Amino acid sequence: MAPWVKFLPDMGPMMEHLVGLHEGSSGNPVALQELWGPCPRAQRRIRGILERVKRQLFRVGEDWYFLVGLGVLMGLISFTMNFVVSRVSHAHMWLYREIGDNHLLRYLSWTVYPIALVSFSTGFSQSITPFSGGSGISEMKVILSGVVLEDYLDIKNFGAKVVGLACALASGSTIFLGKVGPFTHICCMIAAYMGKVRVSALGEYENKIKQNELLVAGAAVGAATVFGAPISGVLFSIEVMSSHFAVWDYWRGFFSSVCGAFMFRLLAVFNSEQETITSLFKTRFRVDIPFDLPEIFFFILLGFVCGIVSCAYLFGHRRFALFVRRNWITKKLLATDKPVYSALVALLLASITYPHSLGRFMASRLSMNLYLDSLFDNQSWALLSRNSSPEWPAEVDPNNLWFEWYHPQFTIFGTLAFFLAMKFWMLILATTIPMPAGYFLPVFIYGASIGRIFGEILAVIFPEGIKTDDGVINTIIPGAYALAGAAAFSGAVTHTISTALLAFELTGQFVHVLPVLMAVLAANAVCQNCQPSFYDNGIILKKLPYLPRVLGRKLNSHLVTAELFMNPNITTLAKDSSLDEVVQTVTSTEAAEYPLVESAESQLLVGIIRRDQLLPFLQAEPTIQASRHQWRLHEVLAGGCPMEPVTLQLSPQTSLHQVHNLFELLKMQRILVTSMGRVVGFISWVELKKAIADLANPPTPK
Amino acid sequence: MAPWVKFLPDMGPMMEHLVGLHEGSSGNPVALQELWGPCPRAQRRIRGILERVKRQLFRVGEDWYFLVGLGVLMGLISFTMNFVVSRVSHAHMWLYREIGDNHLLRYLSWTVYPIALVSFSTGFSQSITPFSGGSGISEMKVILSGVVLEDYLDIKNFGAKVVGLACALASGSTIFLGKVGPFTHICCMIAAYMGKVRVSALGEYENKIKQNELLVAGAAVGAATVFGAPISGVLFSIEVMSSHFAVWDYWRGFFSSVCGAFMFRLLAVFNSEQETITSLFKTRFRVDIPFDLPEIFFFILLGFVCGIVSCAYLFGHRRFALFVRRNWITKKLLATDKPVYSALVALLLASITYPHSLGRFMASRLSMNLYLDSLFDNQSWALLSRNSSPEWPAEVDPNNLWFEWYHPQFTIFGTLAFFLAMKFWMLILATTIPMPAGYFLPVFIYGASIGRIFGEILAVIFPEGIKTDDGVINTIIPGAYALAGAAAFSGAVTHTISTALLAFELTGQFVHVLPVLMAVLAANAVCQNCQPSFYDNGIILKKLPYLPRVLGRKLNSHLVTAELFMNPNITTLAKDSSLDEVVQTVTSTEAAEYPLVESAESQLLVGIIRRDQLLPFLQAEPTIQASRHQWRLHEVLAGGCPMEPVTLQLSPQTSLHQVHNLFELLKMQRILVTSMGRVVGFISWVELKKAIADLANPPTPK
Repeated sequence: MAPWVKFLPDMGPMMEHLVGLHEGSSGNPVALQELWGPCPRAQRRIRGILERVKRQLFRVGEDWYFLVGLGVLMGLISFTMNFVVSRVSHAHMWLYREIGDNHLLRYLSWTVYPIALVSFSTGFSQSITPFSGGSGISEMKVILSGVVLEDYLDIKNFGAKVVGLACALASGSTIFLGKVGPFTHICCMIAAYMGKVRVSALGEYENKIKQNELLVAGAAVGAATVFGAPISGVLFSIEVMSSHFAVWDYWRGFFSSVCGAFMFRLLAVFNSEQETITSLFKTRFRVDIPFDLPEIFFFILLGFVCGIVSCAYLFGHRRFALFVRRNWITKKLLATDKPVYSALVALLLASITYPHSLGRFMASRLSMNLYLDSLFDNQSWALLSRNSSPEWPAEVDPNNLWFEWYHPQFTIFGTLAFFLAMKFWMLILATTIPMPAGYFLPVFIYGASIGRIFGEILAVIFPEGIKTDDGVINTIIPGAYALAGAAAFSGAVTHTISTALLAFELTGQFVHVLPVLMAVLAANAVCQNCQPSFYDNGIILKKLPYLPRVLGRKLNSHLVTAELFMNPNITTLAKDSSLDEVVQTVTSTEAAEYPLVESAESQLLVGIIRRDQLLPFLQAEPTIQASRHQWRLHEVLAGGCPMEPVTLQLSPQTSLHQVHNLFELLKMQRILVTSMGRVVGFISWVELKKAIADLANPPTPK
Repeated sequence: MAPWVKFLPDMGPMMEHLVGLHEGSSGNPVALQELWGPCPRAQRRIRGILERVKRQLFRVGEDWYFLVGLGVLMGLISFTMNFVVSRVSHAHMWLYREIGDNHLLRYLSWTVYPIALVSFSTGFSQSITPFSGGSGISEMKVILSGVVLEDYLDIKNFGAKVVGLACALASGSTIFLGKVGPFTHICCMIAAYMGKVRVSALGEYENKIKQNELLVAGAAVGAATVFGAPISGVLFSIEVMSSHFAVWDYWRGFFSSVCGAFMFRLLAVFNSEQETITSLFKTRFRVDIPFDLPEIFFFILLGFVCGIVSCAYLFGHRRFALFVRRNWITKKLLATDKPVYSALVALLLASITYPHSLGRFMASRLSMNLYLDSLFDNQSWALLSRNSSPEWPAEVDPNNLWFEWYHPQFTIFGTLAFFLAMKFWMLILATTIPMPAGYFLPVFIYGASIGRIFGEILAVIFPEGIKTDDGVINTIIPGAYALAGAAAFSGAVTHTISTALLAFELTGQFVHVLPVLMAVLAANAVCQNCQPSFYDNGIILKKLPYLPRVLGRKLNSHLVTAELFMNPNITTLAKDSSLDEVVQTVTSTEAAEYPLVESAESQLLVGIIRRDQLLPFLQAEPTIQASRHQWRLHEVLAGGCPMEPVTLQLSPQTSLHQVHNLFELLKMQRILVTSMGRVVGFISWVELKKAIADLANPPTPK
């Protein structure tokens, strides 16, 4: 009991109760003052309730409001970006329409717009930061696996990425790029910024964990707010960026994503784009009998086709990116005049898609969204065009989007095939433009068109459907094949299967769940065996540090032990060595941290000294400087130089498989190997990567 | 080159090629014989292609055919079980119908059937194995976290569980139990059996990993094949059973689940139950504007309501289970006459649900599936019953299931409320029956009825929908609230959010994705804060070993280091100790393994000796027995006693948070703590659990 209580003997019992309540927090005489306020009892009760509510709110994980904030903010940004982009493209379309029939003017109005946007996007974003090009998912994957990429998540890149991405998107289907990748990067920037803001009173290690948790949530929110698809957004981000993850992170990702997706769609309703919150690309497939059972085989076949095409695409993408980097013209352009390179590529792409030239045969007047809307159409164009041969309308007819795909001579098959052939290399070309842009949506659309042509061919072969016994006619829905194709192709390119779920979330219908899933699995089976994913391509091309996966098939990884591949050349600092020796060691090597051992002879591991923490002590005091050979390291340590404990050590008998697991699970960069307490070596990514590479191609014994 | 080749000089080069091809595999003269077969070139080429295909197939992970087999087999079992169950319940319904109007006979026919089934199920399954009662998910959760529960996955329990579960299901909605839990257990048994079958030439550690991988896939398949819902099956199993998981396992689970779900639904088509593969409980909600925007708030409110009810349910369940265990009557019955206890409970439940008594007010003639079908109805019963007051039909009318819920005096609100009130305690009572049965489906149905009554009330309050500005009337769909209620309540009870996805996969419609997700999150927010999940309840009640979660809020877990909570009383064996001392140590302690140290004085850790491997050496040779005090332990080791390497050691400075992470990620049971090579203690689940408990309730300093 606080000492002053005894001076108020008549209030004793009550005070005791009060003090008991407050003892934990302060125990100061504030409690006394409360007694003089009005209704002390009610006040206390209300305060108690508030306290309890606060405790409850904080129990969920005290950063849940950061998650809400992250979700809502990103929904807001995503919507605003879409809004601006749609206004800009409307202006472009308006200009193109109003400019009259002069072909040169029309051509100019069609091409200058994207050229200007793309080169501005490149120039602006590259002037702020060189990291801003590309999708950013490869880098995020590396960061989430524990590597520190300096400045990559710095908030100062935010503007570059947002403005650059908006310009890239505004150039529309001419350049044919998407939003997912850079937007995920933007989300992660915000999440990292929030992580820095919420630095609490904890230690460095804990803050790191908290920041990483926020980053994982950020990655999920990014994918979720672009499509307004919370479930697949979370799963996609997990599949693309992690090899292991915690259910705890998954829940937090869901929570944040739902907030983001809700905000994103809510704003669309407020903006009168939609009447209520519904799917973005609503389909109207037949629900009763969406497909005949034998069609399952065609869906699986489509999956294999998508898998093969995705291999060709990934191979082409990697090769072309290397070519652009090595060819002396493009190399020079990309080194000095990135905007010029972008402008040239945009000019080429825009000229090809000009609607009065080749663009006529690839429905180039459709925007990215309209492409998807048209391809997911529930009617069969092949059967429709048998009965009618519509004119090419002067403007895109939103109720009959398939008119864009129809050409009297080429028919819809000609245009779809031409679209596939041209977009294949145009898409690869577009990915070399050094501006912030996503590559998921174009791949999704490309897959949808593969599925569409597949479905239309089936619809022509079986005009009355694949009959079942009872004679009921269920015509084939090419739109369903487009859905399966989109999911399968994008799934194969990114090595994920949650694209199937994305397809359902985007369209709001779940009736084709099994066929689409089977197509996605088939496509993944082909592509995962033959090519690295698109994002792994990015890691390979950018030479980012990344740990290869040890697949189940590499069984000998259990037989290789740490002593075979660890690096035995490790520099240690002994407690009993003189400062002269320490200075010599530190200046002759460049390690960021040194294992501290008991004595140079015993090499018994005691802890870890970080270079940046040791240096000030070595340079600090002139008295020490003068007589360095007399001082010992343990005296410096006693003088306040911090030493970090070693939390985990391996033994030389640990298998490669276990080491790999540890590195993946604990996101480690470097670990010490000790044998009976003696430091015998260390393992870092370099050693581990080499050991894994040796597994696949065992070094030939000489 | 093989020596016999030189005798065939003219065939030299060709033979060389051939031998080169086969050298790796055998190098025996089989290659010679091939030359005399027809078309040796074509043969070779075909063989080469086959070899390459085989290699490709095996690349995916050489046990993918096990995954297919697991999926297909479980789909088959699930379908067969459903088929048998539906036949048995049809027979029951037929008997009940045909028995005439004599009330006593009708009552008997209604009650005897479930009593017989339930008591047979209890007796049969308990006679084979005492583990067979309950859902099995709690045990699977413990097993997947790395604990070995002897015999729990033994294939000999398979029959007990399958037959017991089939009987439990056949007793229908009277007993009101489901299938998910025991079926997951059955799947895991099969997976464990397959894992034992596929033991490869690898070491023990590798086989363990492979078996665990199959087990994870088995858990996913179990949930997926019950509902034919592959996506949510995988996610549900992950959320319920793991705290961390690998994307690699998730892909394998998906693959196996899709095979299983496909098989399950395919058989339904072949059996003419469905025309093609579609959802189980197809809904027909309005697609254009499924809900008005303000309804989102009601959905969230419903989520909170479900969360609160789920807390009450979980609390009641735990308390009642303890009561049954302590009360002397039930205690005695459960100890000696389990079938009698089951029969008594079944008699009570069946008497209440007898349709001509209280069952009339709780639609008890509906089967489990029809309950869901009726609750997800897209019409509003409250509005329907205003215009017409239907008679209670003599039999269930499959086209107007809501007639079962309608009562002229009580109206549908009365019956729904009565259903909720009665089923609350009936469900808790049913969970105490010691037979194999799942508790997910009943909870799902219960949640659907909470949602239904909520939706019907809203439909009455806003008969013309919540009007938007433009005057379009969108009536409220109570079925959508039933969907949200089912997902939210079952999600809260199991602490998962993938139940939302399950709701969509079951109904085939995705239009309510955001409101349902928000309801599920709200329900989880309430329940996760107040009560352990249903399966955690099981762990608590059965006193299974389980590691509590360290939530983000327990921040001081970073400040508690291993030396504060490790167990320093560790018995080591020193290399230089005499066999007399070793025998004394081994007989006086009961540890399964002992750390081996260099000498009793230095205590430097060298490796680990397992008790069961050491004992034979101590008991073996009489010469050693006679002169035990002369022999030293290191001589026994040199004589062949195996010693295992220590792969991982902690230091006394490792924080509780890190230790917990390691235990969770690596599924460890025990880890040694060393300081400068010396063994200073160990940490096992016991110490960790105590340390975590102390975090929540810090021990008061004396």
